[in-house]
Amino acid sequence: MQRLSTSDKDFARKFNRVVNERRESDADIAQTVRDILARVKARGDEAVADYTSRFDRYTLATDADWIISREACKIAFDALDPELRKALELAASRIRTYHEAQLPADRDYRDDTGVRLGARWNPVDAAGLYVPGGRAAYPSSLLMNAIPARVAGVERLVIATPTPKGEVNDLVLAAAHLAGVDEIWRVGGAQAIAALAYGTDRISPVDVITGPGNAWVAEAKRQLYGVVGIDMVAGPSEILVIADGKNDADWIAADLLSQAEHDPSSQSILITDDPVFAERVEDRVDVQCALLSTSKVARQSWDDNGVIIHVNSLDEAPALANRLAAEHVELAVDDPDALFSRLRHAGSVFLGRYTPEAVGDYVAGPNHVLPTGRRARFSSGLSVLDFMKRTSFISLDESSIAAIGPAAVALAEVEGLPAHANSVKVRLK
Amino acid sequence: MQRLSTSDKDFARKFNRVVNERRESDADIAQTVRDILARVKARGDEAVADYTSRFDRYTLATDADWIISREACKIAFDALDPELRKALELAASRIRTYHEAQLPADRDYRDDTGVRLGARWNPVDAAGLYVPGGRAAYPSSLLMNAIPARVAGVERLVIATPTPKGEVNDLVLAAAHLAGVDEIWRVGGAQAIAALAYGTDRISPVDVITGPGNAWVAEAKRQLYGVVGIDMVAGPSEILVIADGKNDADWIAADLLSQAEHDPSSQSILITDDPVFAERVEDRVDVQCALLSTSKVARQSWDDNGVIIHVNSLDEAPALANRLAAEHVELAVDDPDALFSRLRHAGSVFLGRYTPEAVGDYVAGPNHVLPTGRRARFSSGLSVLDFMKRTSFISLDESSIAAIGPAAVALAEVEGLPAHANSVKVRLK
Repeated sequence: MQRLSTSDKDFARKFNRVVNERRESDADIAQTVRDILARVKARGDEAVADYTSRFDRYTLATDADWIISREACKIAFDALDPELRKALELAASRIRTYHEAQLPADRDYRDDTGVRLGARWNPVDAAGLYVPGGRAAYPSSLLMNAIPARVAGVERLVIATPTPKGEVNDLVLAAAHLAGVDEIWRVGGAQAIAALAYGTDRISPVDVITGPGNAWVAEAKRQLYGVVGIDMVAGPSEILVIADGKNDADWIAADLLSQAEHDPSSQSILITDDPVFAERVEDRVDVQCALLSTSKVARQSWDDNGVIIHVNSLDEAPALANRLAAEHVELAVDDPDALFSRLRHAGSVFLGRYTPEAVGDYVAGPNHVLPTGRRARFSSGLSVLDFMKRTSFISLDESSIAAIGPAAVALAEVEGLPAHANSVKVRLK
Repeated sequence: MQRLSTSDKDFARKFNRVVNERRESDADIAQTVRDILARVKARGDEAVADYTSRFDRYTLATDADWIISREACKIAFDALDPELRKALELAASRIRTYHEAQLPADRDYRDDTGVRLGARWNPVDAAGLYVPGGRAAYPSSLLMNAIPARVAGVERLVIATPTPKGEVNDLVLAAAHLAGVDEIWRVGGAQAIAALAYGTDRISPVDVITGPGNAWVAEAKRQLYGVVGIDMVAGPSEILVIADGKNDADWIAADLLSQAEHDPSSQSILITDDPVFAERVEDRVDVQCALLSTSKVARQSWDDNGVIIHVNSLDEAPALANRLAAEHVELAVDDPDALFSRLRHAGSVFLGRYTPEAVGDYVAGPNHVLPTGRRARFSSGLSVLDFMKRTSFISLDESSIAAIGPAAVALAEVEGLPAHANSVKVRLK
């Protein structure tokens, strides 16, 4: 864990290093992924089965090997502990409500020259959601990806998920039932992304692929961007907590650890104007961490990537926060809105002392798929818009083309595009 | 030019080939681009100057060599022919009006559990627009990229454009003045995209890069996606004209040629239910094409990529159009809205007989930067949203965390994330 202070002489240099440090894996996996994509594109299901046998030690032979049935999902859902089922249902319902209000409005109007203009939104035909196996197989992620797609009106909703040695995650199945997923393919890794993008004999191609995954999955999505739409290039996640000395150190320590326990490459940063409070938080992180079943991961993340920044006044915090453009920002102060109004770059903001980031991971309603690694400078969390696209339209008549057509002719001619000019001129008397 | 008919026995196979044919260059330029990006990242301005000398035969030595001043842009604008200036001003004003209505609304509300939720939109800090040199240096493209960025509220708007042998395009300078661009760098190719994304000593990095370019530029943007935001992977452009036999064959031929003259890899497709009309259009394409100064390009595009599809009824057209997901779709029929209501995948639609696609390239108002190569299945034309991003926010108090917190605890625990659960539990009494 690093301790910085804006009063330090070399603060700018040290802070720049925090901002620019790549926490992503440096291993060059691009070539491996390129090979996998090419092979799945050329050989389809055969290549997918081959990689699945090799990487997941799972055999894809019969039809039943490939698919998890919707019946299996319903059974998993019905078998849920009642309290857990209610929690999942509350999450799904709140996520749905928040995302329904994101549905964009069409436009259709006539302007003062008589030109009719507008735009219509349509959902994509098919979306593929990647659900990782192992440590990161979260039912909450499934809901956060599937529900916006359903709200957008996507007709075919497909999951790809690895089932190493044949093991399935019942919670994920239950969530798939709740979200109303159409197909679940037992395929993972870059080979799953390739199958979803290119299509195979068994798996029809999709138009958009979203969902978290390991470095191979992320690289496969990056390489296939343009063949399909993707959500975002995702990296290790991060939290920035901006807190004054009036907070309970235990609460803030818990928040920092909630990010640290995700992955050794996660990052938790505290900005505070109270150095005594900072020390108390540090102590409480140590105490709480030792008690966690995830302590090994959390410890490594905090030791390697944790940062505590002391500022002379919280007034300095928004400028630092905008540089960090963090995925999650907590504003644990009396008047969070004053700070929030000065934040320009953040994935999601948690206002006030009673809003731990974890409520946003599960039940608040906004999406927990958020831009990481400073990408909040230019990108947004997942929304229904990621599953929709806009078609603009134009309609002219004899009189409106007379009004604006000649300007188009002048511009086309000066750009050296005579056929463009012609297509307007033939319609002008 | 290919002639197909839905009555042909092997129509499905032939049409599939039209849909799936890659018209993009197959040359493997990915490695070259990777090298350029790595060198600019490591050596900055020196590498940029080196590539510029090599590829553009232009020397970047003094400060004045690197930049085109805002004064030069004003001089170019003032020197415009008055008719042309008025045409550019009309275009700019109509583009601005259309895009202003795209500005998204923030959300801020309290739901029935007392949870405050919402989302705020902010512009990116800096946008870089690529403006190609040579054949494709269009002032209209500059307006279509720069104005949405300005409307979004982007503070720093930067152009990179090659000036081969020192040659500048006065029209582009004039358009830059009109759009209010802040910096113009005389740098092109993949090296320009690298400089904008990573930053150099001279060129501060930007957050989003948009604008057309050759295959190297497109590949550089693709590779840097995630480091910065980009508009879209752009390929050769295309038009689909759906027309009945009541059209003037000369008008439709002009429209097909307006796309064909862009590039040999452009594609023009006509769907009609009238085989006699189709033949007339084919004749008029030949006659008009011969008269164009761009005839060589247009001829090659039409010969290589042109398609005329005969359908038994225009009722069959929307399904074919949705498969093609074309950048531009003209509906030259009496009741275009009936067909339009069945189109799900298209970049921009031109309704009725008096709406040639070229009006959309210049003066209609909607953006002419549109998804190509079937990408309208999942992506949209350029808009102010490409220069903005959304920050969601959540605010709970003692009573609302009591209402929804326990469900978050239950889900965190079942996902094996005890620190997540803790961060909520410490705030529950």
